[in-house]
Amino acid sequence: MREFLIRPDPDAPRLTRAVTGRDQTGRETEIRVVEERALTIYLNGQEIVTAMTIGDYPEYLALGYLLNQGMLLASDRVTAVEHDEELEVVVVRTERETDYEDKLKKKTRTSGCAVGTVFGDMMEALDGVRLPDAALRTSWLYALSRKINTAPSLYLEAGAIHGTVLCEGDRPLVFMEDVGRHNAVDKIAGWMFREGVSGADKILYTTGRLTSEMVIKTALMGVPILASRSGFTAWGVELARQVGMTLIGRMRGQRFVCLSGEERVIYDADPSAHPEEDARHRRKGAAADG
Amino acid sequence: MREFLIRPDPDAPRLTRAVTGRDQTGRETEIRVVEERALTIYLNGQEIVTAMTIGDYPEYLALGYLLNQGMLLASDRVTAVEHDEELEVVVVRTERETDYEDKLKKKTRTSGCAVGTVFGDMMEALDGVRLPDAALRTSWLYALSRKINTAPSLYLEAGAIHGTVLCEGDRPLVFMEDVGRHNAVDKIAGWMFREGVSGADKILYTTGRLTSEMVIKTALMGVPILASRSGFTAWGVELARQVGMTLIGRMRGQRFVCLSGEERVIYDADPSAHPEEDARHRRKGAAADG
Repeated sequence: MREFLIRPDPDAPRLTRAVTGRDQTGRETEIRVVEERALTIYLNGQEIVTAMTIGDYPEYLALGYLLNQGMLLASDRVTAVEHDEELEVVVVRTERETDYEDKLKKKTRTSGCAVGTVFGDMMEALDGVRLPDAALRTSWLYALSRKINTAPSLYLEAGAIHGTVLCEGDRPLVFMEDVGRHNAVDKIAGWMFREGVSGADKILYTTGRLTSEMVIKTALMGVPILASRSGFTAWGVELARQVGMTLIGRMRGQRFVCLSGEERVIYDADPSAHPEEDARHRRKGAAADG
Repeated sequence: MREFLIRPDPDAPRLTRAVTGRDQTGRETEIRVVEERALTIYLNGQEIVTAMTIGDYPEYLALGYLLNQGMLLASDRVTAVEHDEELEVVVVRTERETDYEDKLKKKTRTSGCAVGTVFGDMMEALDGVRLPDAALRTSWLYALSRKINTAPSLYLEAGAIHGTVLCEGDRPLVFMEDVGRHNAVDKIAGWMFREGVSGADKILYTTGRLTSEMVIKTALMGVPILASRSGFTAWGVELARQVGMTLIGRMRGQRFVCLSGEERVIYDADPSAHPEEDARHRRKGAAADG
């Protein structure tokens, strides 16, 4: 597939807004900030969740969220996805009748940027998952970092946003951003479902932390390699090892750390040939690692 | 109050773990990563939510979460907070009978690092909230940044974690960290409730983004000033202006931006006297602004 089938559109009027304030000297200043909108996701007759999102790709977000929650099955036939921008609602309709009334009573507050996950069920879904063989060249990691960090993005325009990129070899294919990093992942899951794209030969790159939920979602998407500029949680590492996922974190400039699935990594690049990130492309100002 | 009544304990054995992996050259390396544990919060007989947390201060987390969800009222008499480390459960008992069965069917997936928020209710709770008068000296912001960023923390030890600090003038009072930045805020809300501390003369500092939910929680805690190293969302700015909150973001080195409540700010510091952050204390590797 060619590079950047989908990429951020920093100039899209609905995604950022100019706001006027004052800087540290008291001087008036105008900056761009990202939008944050409510989007309520329905599955057939049932209200499932209200997500806070920048609002692009609501259909992919709805499909991906439902898939990653195990409410929509890979085998499901989706008969319609209806988005009403005014009502801030998206309805996913399936041939199969669905009822998650009980499920919706359970809730898990996950680390980082996820919400309303039915976590127990996600854990169960992980049982017996073994990710396929794959190779990861370190030269790909450096190429992906460079292409992704220098691509025009809402992050570079307004900050305060996460990015997730579905990649193949050294090619970024689908680059999604959102105020919640899990929305960005879900939008990619929704795109893969719609396009019938397999995760087996892909690499998922995220700007967010490698928490238990991020690892679970990546595994459920069938992607054997997860890479991030940010750090790890212990549980994220444990789960990655359990499902045989290659987990790469703290990927900045020439450095990175692999804490799971090292056997897939082919060290074909000379790290010292890759300079540290310059200030413009260093993703600044975050506090925790995502 | 004196500085750092509560501060992170980077050496606490249950909060981080050493994990072995490989670096970019293939060399074996050992790094410390933060723990991420499930903690299920009960209010009286009712299971409310399961939070992913590093696991310190479970009582404060439970109280603060319930307060910020409007399930526990400032007027409530808490008769017991029981934590069972083995069962990963914390039970908050109140004199008043509580029943949030219906409420728990609603869910909002919020931006950044929150979960399972009953967002509609939080918005309602905000109606008519006007935060008290307060002054904010820019010299305090610089002093707070310096003290917080150089304090020993799990972030400096292991990364991948957010911090939130309740401050008074130029003094950090309570410094909480957690894998979810909203857990860190909730732990502070729980501490304020337990200690009967008012937010009226306080400043809340967070490493996370200034999203709608962060602004709502800060307003419900009665704190008129919210400052962050990270960026803004448009809705966060709107809500801050609605409740009269001073909102400071992108606070790094000598720079910051104020997008709401500028009238409280007293420019008593010379920004140029404050150097840029050095690499050690710059909070590295985050992708989005928190």
